[in-house]
Amino acid sequence: MPDQRRIVVVGGMACGPKAAARARRCDPHAHITIVEQGATVSEGSCGLPYYVGGQVASNKALLIRTPRYFKEVSNIEVLTGTRAVAIHRTAHELEVVEIASGAASRLPYDKLVLATGATPVSPPQLAGKELDGVFTLTKIADADAILKELSRAAPCNAVVVGAGLIGLESAEALRARGLNVSVVEALDRVLPALLDAEISLHAENELSEQGVALFLGQRVIRLEGDEHNHVRRVVTEKESIEADIVILALGYHPNVELARDAGLEIGSTGGLAVNERLQTSDPDIYAGGDCVENTHRVTGQKILAPMGSTANKHGRIIGTNVTGGDDTFPGVLGTTIVKVFDLNVARVGLTEREAHEAGFKTVVAITPGYDRASYYPGAQMITIKLVADAETERVLGGQMVGKGDVAKRTDVLVASISLNGTVGDVSNLDLAYSPPFNGAMDLLHNAANVIRNKIAGQARSISPLEVNDRICKGEDFVLLDVRSQQEWDDAHIDACQCQLIPLNKLREAVSTLPKDARIVTLCRTSVRAYQAQRMLEGEGFKDVCFMDGSIVAWPYAVTCSSK
Amino acid sequence: MPDQRRIVVVGGMACGPKAAARARRCDPHAHITIVEQGATVSEGSCGLPYYVGGQVASNKALLIRTPRYFKEVSNIEVLTGTRAVAIHRTAHELEVVEIASGAASRLPYDKLVLATGATPVSPPQLAGKELDGVFTLTKIADADAILKELSRAAPCNAVVVGAGLIGLESAEALRARGLNVSVVEALDRVLPALLDAEISLHAENELSEQGVALFLGQRVIRLEGDEHNHVRRVVTEKESIEADIVILALGYHPNVELARDAGLEIGSTGGLAVNERLQTSDPDIYAGGDCVENTHRVTGQKILAPMGSTANKHGRIIGTNVTGGDDTFPGVLGTTIVKVFDLNVARVGLTEREAHEAGFKTVVAITPGYDRASYYPGAQMITIKLVADAETERVLGGQMVGKGDVAKRTDVLVASISLNGTVGDVSNLDLAYSPPFNGAMDLLHNAANVIRNKIAGQARSISPLEVNDRICKGEDFVLLDVRSQQEWDDAHIDACQCQLIPLNKLREAVSTLPKDARIVTLCRTSVRAYQAQRMLEGEGFKDVCFMDGSIVAWPYAVTCSSK
Repeated sequence: MPDQRRIVVVGGMACGPKAAARARRCDPHAHITIVEQGATVSEGSCGLPYYVGGQVASNKALLIRTPRYFKEVSNIEVLTGTRAVAIHRTAHELEVVEIASGAASRLPYDKLVLATGATPVSPPQLAGKELDGVFTLTKIADADAILKELSRAAPCNAVVVGAGLIGLESAEALRARGLNVSVVEALDRVLPALLDAEISLHAENELSEQGVALFLGQRVIRLEGDEHNHVRRVVTEKESIEADIVILALGYHPNVELARDAGLEIGSTGGLAVNERLQTSDPDIYAGGDCVENTHRVTGQKILAPMGSTANKHGRIIGTNVTGGDDTFPGVLGTTIVKVFDLNVARVGLTEREAHEAGFKTVVAITPGYDRASYYPGAQMITIKLVADAETERVLGGQMVGKGDVAKRTDVLVASISLNGTVGDVSNLDLAYSPPFNGAMDLLHNAANVIRNKIAGQARSISPLEVNDRICKGEDFVLLDVRSQQEWDDAHIDACQCQLIPLNKLREAVSTLPKDARIVTLCRTSVRAYQAQRMLEGEGFKDVCFMDGSIVAWPYAVTCSSK
Repeated sequence: MPDQRRIVVVGGMACGPKAAARARRCDPHAHITIVEQGATVSEGSCGLPYYVGGQVASNKALLIRTPRYFKEVSNIEVLTGTRAVAIHRTAHELEVVEIASGAASRLPYDKLVLATGATPVSPPQLAGKELDGVFTLTKIADADAILKELSRAAPCNAVVVGAGLIGLESAEALRARGLNVSVVEALDRVLPALLDAEISLHAENELSEQGVALFLGQRVIRLEGDEHNHVRRVVTEKESIEADIVILALGYHPNVELARDAGLEIGSTGGLAVNERLQTSDPDIYAGGDCVENTHRVTGQKILAPMGSTANKHGRIIGTNVTGGDDTFPGVLGTTIVKVFDLNVARVGLTEREAHEAGFKTVVAITPGYDRASYYPGAQMITIKLVADAETERVLGGQMVGKGDVAKRTDVLVASISLNGTVGDVSNLDLAYSPPFNGAMDLLHNAANVIRNKIAGQARSISPLEVNDRICKGEDFVLLDVRSQQEWDDAHIDACQCQLIPLNKLREAVSTLPKDARIVTLCRTSVRAYQAQRMLEGEGFKDVCFMDGSIVAWPYAVTCSSK
């Protein structure tokens, strides 16, 4: 190693600059260079949908740092407009090409950092994707192009292909700009990779209420254009949808060509393989951000989880390690949060489906309630689906949806799951309580206690999806609503199996119910429904359970019978 | 034990009803009775300041359950207006008196639950405390009496005695009603038992800005009244303050007389002693809520921490245990959150002072920043003070203040501390990120990393309190502000030691600073100040540190020099 350590970083967006800045703070004398093929560095790309939608007024707000800042403040050289084309590992040199001039040169390194990011998926077989008016949204330049198109062509109809995070954020942005928006998704749900259906259905309801047309369970076949080569139609397996502007939001694939060409190990996920220190298979080459695969902290499996938050954490660890330090990254929980119009939607850890697939014996609770004291102004409902391992009682994951504060509960679960907390641990967390901020029992306490009650054999429930299925099949069971008449009149499930006996009348009405009836109780949030289950069992009923989450979590139509 | 288990609960507010309801769900056949001396049960007493202030329109919102509800729904007998006067432990009988009639009777029990709550401290030596217009605020009846006084007498001047939680909440409520409000506190800070001065000073600034007059470091000597026996003045050691209405908010003491008379063990804190199962020294008598002492999860010491949230958790555990189950309570973290006008203020675990006193070698970070992406509409600043153990790197506590979301970070720390997390654990939590909800790095990540940098010997800082002290003493050091000229003009520290060299000019200006200077760097949030510290050290400076939290966390006056 020479006197002055030479560190070369490929990629100037999130992980790269963070690694370089951290390296500088650890080693005041290192020679540090960032190579970036674009004209800018450190874009706040997660903010792009809000720039397109107008909540963020200027793209300047998303330019977090300039090359000049890096030079003046951190003495870091930034080579923009420069592409890394080959790693000469034996020589410890990075071959780069200045894009404008085509001039090639070699940058010697002691440690190389690959932060090459990810590229939007663009199916090679998708005809018409090169038409004018078809965009992706990953860079400020993309957003500027979309905004230019909006002001130039004043399009009426937008189609977003893909109902993942960027897809839904793009849909909201275009709706905010006054367009008719359709979303097409090959799978049968929105956010299909992130949520169980009990939660994603609520996001679908919100999208529909906000005027977004959903075309689910249908693959896009082709995009059709007009005589000016401008997109005019999105053709799916089932529909032909008018489109003046199209956003392709089909996910990302990690940029690993440079690494692959250099013989570095690529993981089974398609991401660059790294160890806990974020070293690639070449110990002098580190990698982080969207181009690498991560370890899931619950399953131990490798996953792709491209997030700006993870990229920043990677950057710090790499900056430490390339300057002689020793730091490790423990992995991710796949934490995701997204605003879907007025709904907040989040998940952490494993969904129920993922937990099943990973071999856990799962137990779940769906628990709705207010995000602060119910009587405090501004209190909003949220619904939490908590997933735990029935054997170890360890919390495996959580999903939440609602107009209220889901971010807080998500992050509490992040900490709890990361530190191997059980539902018992969660149920006794001394969470901050005061009416403007929470109820005396947080919803996570309630959800954890429901799971403990289930594990103890006291609480029994079934999913609203299964109840809906039973109703649709015309099965013989009693769907016993134990709310008040007023609540029933405001909104109830319109099914022949459904009947109302308010909880305070249930003891005296018990004799009207046949002892061998299959009974599913429900109320507003399941608190009374669970009480009804216990009461009926105490009276000798054998087949009673409550519907998870009751009316608030019910994602299907309800009927209003009040005047 | 007879066929039908007999459970008697003393106290109908939070823990008692929760224990009874939980017992019912665990045992459908038990005979369960709640004894309550007041006329109501299940008051949401934490909401009282907001009812007084007008945010909660009706006291009905704070009446969570009625005796009739307990009877109809849970088959629980509620005896209101009934005082428990003696426990006959050998006979397993509770002696009660119906207050209205004076009739005494005995309730046999298999398990007895004491949830007798706490009573506001009312110093026996305080003259004038019986005057009209002097109130405490713990029950709906208190709030109704205050509101009646406000509408009857239209008082102008309110004095709140005690600057703890209820004191500050009462001050805000009365200010919302248009009164001139003064707060008197014997100690020299607001929230003195909860916060270190770096945080409480911000709450004081907010109170002053909102027009609340603070009289700190002065004990109240007496209350003086007029010829109608109505309070007119609060006399302290130093001042005489006009008062048409007085709220005494001097804390609570646990109601343990019944237990003490029965020979049950009382802890050194004055609270009823219980084990992890919430059993008293009599295994057939359980106790929970504000009348018991709790175990602090960090220190293992016994503390009084009367909170509705804790009372509810106690209730569930007791309900389980009195019906043959086995559940334990792991203790508390002293978590507290309070709205102080437009500021949110919270703490969890140990303050720096408490950590010192408990014998930890502490290391702290004071980290300000935005509560979501800085460019996202509505982003607000908060300041976090994180406290860790330098030896184990375990997180010991956190305090936070600001207009932004402090509740989320508090609760993440609750989970992290409860599960013995280190600063390394916190720095890598996969917290939910999307611009409407957070920045790519949460402030907790930043604070944890600052502490890691300090433990690693890279970051060095001093408290703003110490900087202020040095300025006041006229010490010879350079207070080096590395922000931009514009930022300086907007607000800077007016001290002869303070000078401006923007960070991007610092490298070239290094030669103007004497190498042996004592330098304290500062910026807006300490990010640039830390970079400046590292840069100057790289240039050979030996005595450089940054000011914790920089300008945002600086709790003293600043000067504006822009036009």
